[in-house]
Amino acid sequence: MPTRPHKSELPTTQPTNGYTPVPFTAVTIADHFWAPRQRINRERTLPHIDKQNTMTGRIDAFRRDWAPAPELTWRDHRWRGSHVMFWDSDVAKWIEAAAYSLAIHPDPTLDARLDAIITLIAERQEPDGYMNTWFLTVDPAMRWANLRDWHELYNAGHMIEAAVAHYEATGKRTLLEVMCRYADHIGEMFGRGHSQKRGYCGHPEIELALLRLARATGEPRYYQLARYFVDERGQQPHYFDQEAIARGQHPSEFWARSYEYNQSHLPVREQVEAVGHAVRAMYLYSAMAELAGAENDQQLHDACTRLWHHLTTKRMYVMGGIGTSAKNEGFTSDYDLPNESAYAETCAAIGLVFWAQRMLKFSLDRHYTDILELALYNAVLSGVSHDGEHFFYENPLASTGDHQRQEWFSCPCCPPNLARIIASVGGYVYAQNEREAIVHLYVQGSGLFHFGEQTVALHQATDYPWDGRITLRVATDQPTPYTLRLRIPGWCSAPAAWLNGTPINALAENGYLGIERKWCNGDEVVLMLPMPAERIYARPEVTSDLGLVALRRGPLIYCVEQVDQSVPVERIVLPTSAALTAEFCGDLLDGVVAITGPALTFTSAGWADDELYHTTPPALQPCKITAIPYYAWGNRTPGAMRIWLPTMNA
Amino acid sequence: MPTRPHKSELPTTQPTNGYTPVPFTAVTIADHFWAPRQRINRERTLPHIDKQNTMTGRIDAFRRDWAPAPELTWRDHRWRGSHVMFWDSDVAKWIEAAAYSLAIHPDPTLDARLDAIITLIAERQEPDGYMNTWFLTVDPAMRWANLRDWHELYNAGHMIEAAVAHYEATGKRTLLEVMCRYADHIGEMFGRGHSQKRGYCGHPEIELALLRLARATGEPRYYQLARYFVDERGQQPHYFDQEAIARGQHPSEFWARSYEYNQSHLPVREQVEAVGHAVRAMYLYSAMAELAGAENDQQLHDACTRLWHHLTTKRMYVMGGIGTSAKNEGFTSDYDLPNESAYAETCAAIGLVFWAQRMLKFSLDRHYTDILELALYNAVLSGVSHDGEHFFYENPLASTGDHQRQEWFSCPCCPPNLARIIASVGGYVYAQNEREAIVHLYVQGSGLFHFGEQTVALHQATDYPWDGRITLRVATDQPTPYTLRLRIPGWCSAPAAWLNGTPINALAENGYLGIERKWCNGDEVVLMLPMPAERIYARPEVTSDLGLVALRRGPLIYCVEQVDQSVPVERIVLPTSAALTAEFCGDLLDGVVAITGPALTFTSAGWADDELYHTTPPALQPCKITAIPYYAWGNRTPGAMRIWLPTMNA
Repeated sequence: MPTRPHKSELPTTQPTNGYTPVPFTAVTIADHFWAPRQRINRERTLPHIDKQNTMTGRIDAFRRDWAPAPELTWRDHRWRGSHVMFWDSDVAKWIEAAAYSLAIHPDPTLDARLDAIITLIAERQEPDGYMNTWFLTVDPAMRWANLRDWHELYNAGHMIEAAVAHYEATGKRTLLEVMCRYADHIGEMFGRGHSQKRGYCGHPEIELALLRLARATGEPRYYQLARYFVDERGQQPHYFDQEAIARGQHPSEFWARSYEYNQSHLPVREQVEAVGHAVRAMYLYSAMAELAGAENDQQLHDACTRLWHHLTTKRMYVMGGIGTSAKNEGFTSDYDLPNESAYAETCAAIGLVFWAQRMLKFSLDRHYTDILELALYNAVLSGVSHDGEHFFYENPLASTGDHQRQEWFSCPCCPPNLARIIASVGGYVYAQNEREAIVHLYVQGSGLFHFGEQTVALHQATDYPWDGRITLRVATDQPTPYTLRLRIPGWCSAPAAWLNGTPINALAENGYLGIERKWCNGDEVVLMLPMPAERIYARPEVTSDLGLVALRRGPLIYCVEQVDQSVPVERIVLPTSAALTAEFCGDLLDGVVAITGPALTFTSAGWADDELYHTTPPALQPCKITAIPYYAWGNRTPGAMRIWLPTMNA
Repeated sequence: MPTRPHKSELPTTQPTNGYTPVPFTAVTIADHFWAPRQRINRERTLPHIDKQNTMTGRIDAFRRDWAPAPELTWRDHRWRGSHVMFWDSDVAKWIEAAAYSLAIHPDPTLDARLDAIITLIAERQEPDGYMNTWFLTVDPAMRWANLRDWHELYNAGHMIEAAVAHYEATGKRTLLEVMCRYADHIGEMFGRGHSQKRGYCGHPEIELALLRLARATGEPRYYQLARYFVDERGQQPHYFDQEAIARGQHPSEFWARSYEYNQSHLPVREQVEAVGHAVRAMYLYSAMAELAGAENDQQLHDACTRLWHHLTTKRMYVMGGIGTSAKNEGFTSDYDLPNESAYAETCAAIGLVFWAQRMLKFSLDRHYTDILELALYNAVLSGVSHDGEHFFYENPLASTGDHQRQEWFSCPCCPPNLARIIASVGGYVYAQNEREAIVHLYVQGSGLFHFGEQTVALHQATDYPWDGRITLRVATDQPTPYTLRLRIPGWCSAPAAWLNGTPINALAENGYLGIERKWCNGDEVVLMLPMPAERIYARPEVTSDLGLVALRRGPLIYCVEQVDQSVPVERIVLPTSAALTAEFCGDLLDGVVAITGPALTFTSAGWADDELYHTTPPALQPCKITAIPYYAWGNRTPGAMRIWLPTMNA
């Protein structure tokens, strides 16, 4: 049985000046953008992932009688054979996503399916609480022997998040109790005590999971364990060194060559640059941000803002993707942002959304929200097809046509990560504290806020992201004083707002327009966020984008995809003078605003077939281009795609 | 003992309408360009390679008591341990290069060193003639078991070329006899006879080597064996299939996946496109070209011209480099010519020179010579540093600064290949037949021609490639009738020529200006080949070069290297209007003509430090650029380099 929560013992994870996201269960999404995506996520993506998990043996691996093929061993960072050591996390993320879906869309079949899988998991748990199918079945002798590479605590973290989500969605404690026992076991194994291992996971995840578990259970010891894992990271003597030596390996044999790879190169408070594996970085920074706020830890907070600043001003793609290189699935050097070879893993963009949300808990600044929105609407959403069953793991900003969506991956971290963020996307729209109601994102629907005993609903009517007009209407059974803060996105250069028909002249503070009043039922704010099609450019240090232009409209980054063009994508030049037209096309890609305009294309006219080089440049001739939102590419006939287009004065 | 030559049995390898290159031993180079390179090749490169060959065990491997470390085996396409199966070829190419040097520059020490190594080789030869250190010492059971991957005949080919070169340079038959015995053994092993293997080498080389051996010895059987290897290639049933099955492997397990890799996907006469590993292709096509001419084989000739046309109009870099991809060290698809990732192996460009020379034996067309010259002065010469001891294996057309010359390589094919072509570069300057004296290249010095019993010398005075004025003077002890044919390079748009002061108005035929007369001692032709700095462009199908411009002057392709610039190379834009100046700089890179001019550079002025993207483009500000010949880059402070620069109308 799990220990009963004792809320009073918990350090506050919410300082009075912090903001709590309005949970997605208190948010209704009733738009034409996210609501259909949630439906497809529910009807297509979740069954698809469950089927893939099942087909590949990931569910059976929890059965007590499951065994790997006898010749299977796994003693280095590569895997072989039929089990992969991340399997548990793939199931866990699916459980989490399914639980989110269940929380807003009851489904007895799905509920029963969750129960069945959770039963298997519970039965597989060892008496001491341990629960990891790889180390229970494939490599039992190596339990906790390689935290650096073997994802043991990472798997636990995802299963803990699943347990919390399932508990919060259904009220059932089945998985929660299993994972509390496991967390308790982990708490016994790891720490600064004499008999404990002073380790932490090579792939951060357990930290933010334990913070969630602490909030859900009210148990301070999970919070303390999370704090231990964050604080211990990168301390000397280095745990991964010692652990390697204990395995009979020299630390310098670490395949990734540097502890930057897993962000353990320095104690977290001393870290200055976003380095290494991008998903690991995002999960770690998310936990750091949450802890910094909860503890009022200025040093940790400074580390977070420093890392955020570094990442978003030097290492982020224009569509919010992060992590340049496939080699380390992560960061390389400042301004190294090649387009065609961009890794920009879907999970990394998801992690950036997680981190941004946690930064916003303690620093209400639209810069975080702008990037949350950018990543969510572009680099995250590009990860899943319109049919919900095909995915991008990598999200390049240009392709010659060979980058195509897959049904599944050998390391399928992205599909269930997409499923869980789409199912819970309502949780990013609003936040509040005791005196303020925050609107981070514009999504038609509503959110519920609690001020003391009073519940206030805020209804949004908008066709965002296609249109920047938002009408916000307050519904409350009695007038309630609070400050409504509306984000004015950084991409919007000419916002305007009206309160009950009267223009609001207040200036936005940190990008949030604050309206303090006693709000009455029916009060209405109209916000106009004009979203013309705009050209954007990279600073010249980003040599991959020199001489190139990208198109943006509102929160969306656009691309040209071959299927929409009459000329080869690679040969398009968008002159500076070309007038761009934005128009909603209901029959294009389930309905998108397309950007069209005149452009130029290089032609071979005048070149003999056998001339490869000569002394006059290829001529340009007029053409038309159609750009679509980046997230929507790769849903039709495969072909070339580019976000950045050559431009010229003309 | 080798069989005595019987010249009468030899098919003619020189049809009456064909052209024989004037051997480099009959050519004097007395210029400021090649002569210093030959000196450095002799004084630095040859000793450097010999030292490396010795240090790495390549010489010792010929000793009878040499043995590999006992654990070494080699059963797939990768090598491990201390011997690599190409070792013999590295020594062979050094012997060949050393012999060329010896032929034009007597050196008793080098002569003795050659004798010593040849003695080792001779002692190592098996009684049956076999001679390959890998299969004699490392993997004896697998002799002739994998022609597809294991370079056995390739090694033999290079050692045969070495033997011929040594014989021709010194008159000594020591190595020649060894290699004749080995060639005879190979002739017994391979062919269409009942007891013979119907194989051929995965890496062509033996073919052109046997043709040389046939010419040197007058032995028709070597010629027939070369023809067999060429003709048998790609026939069905496919030898590499059968050989794989005999080794217990399925043919589909071939790591390179397609026989295009080694140009055995089709019989050679049916081949249409230059495919696969670029060096293999060049060596094969060279042998094909020679055979086609020797046999008057129209089908084979057509295959050669088709392949040449395909390669040079669709798959060749602007500086004559070939082979796009590191993956197969070779060709990819038409117009796929990325710059920074260009493989453009030095050996492939050398192979292109070999092939061009052989095409010219039977088709006097400047197109072949233009490309021979382009490759030689750019993509070949870039392979070796000015100090003669550092090399490029890959020759990218752009670098961010991480591509640097190496002293040696794990597969050091390029250094000795460079040594042999530089030592013998005089052999590419002139050719002749019974009635014509051909000047392919312009190099200060002289060449000897034989018309009947009459010897005629042609002296060139020129500062080529820095200046396009060439004075050709005839030296003969009696007037001799022949046609002097001077190549008018394709890069030259306004050539002019004078015979004894009188303008020549004749048109060039296939790019060669023919002057037929009875030439007298002192007759003088002045040729003016104006070489302004020019802009060149790629056809738009080459998407990597769209919107970019390259600089050329005469035969040289230029690049901008960071060390010469005041702004980052990556940010330079060369406007269409910028006037370019070409000037000889005696103290720059041992003396080169540099091209300078005004350009523009993208500046971060106006960008806040934390702006990564915004809605106005980076401004351009004036700068100056200095371009140097591409071959000379990588000899100073390492840094970025680009051949292709962005351009704009301005």
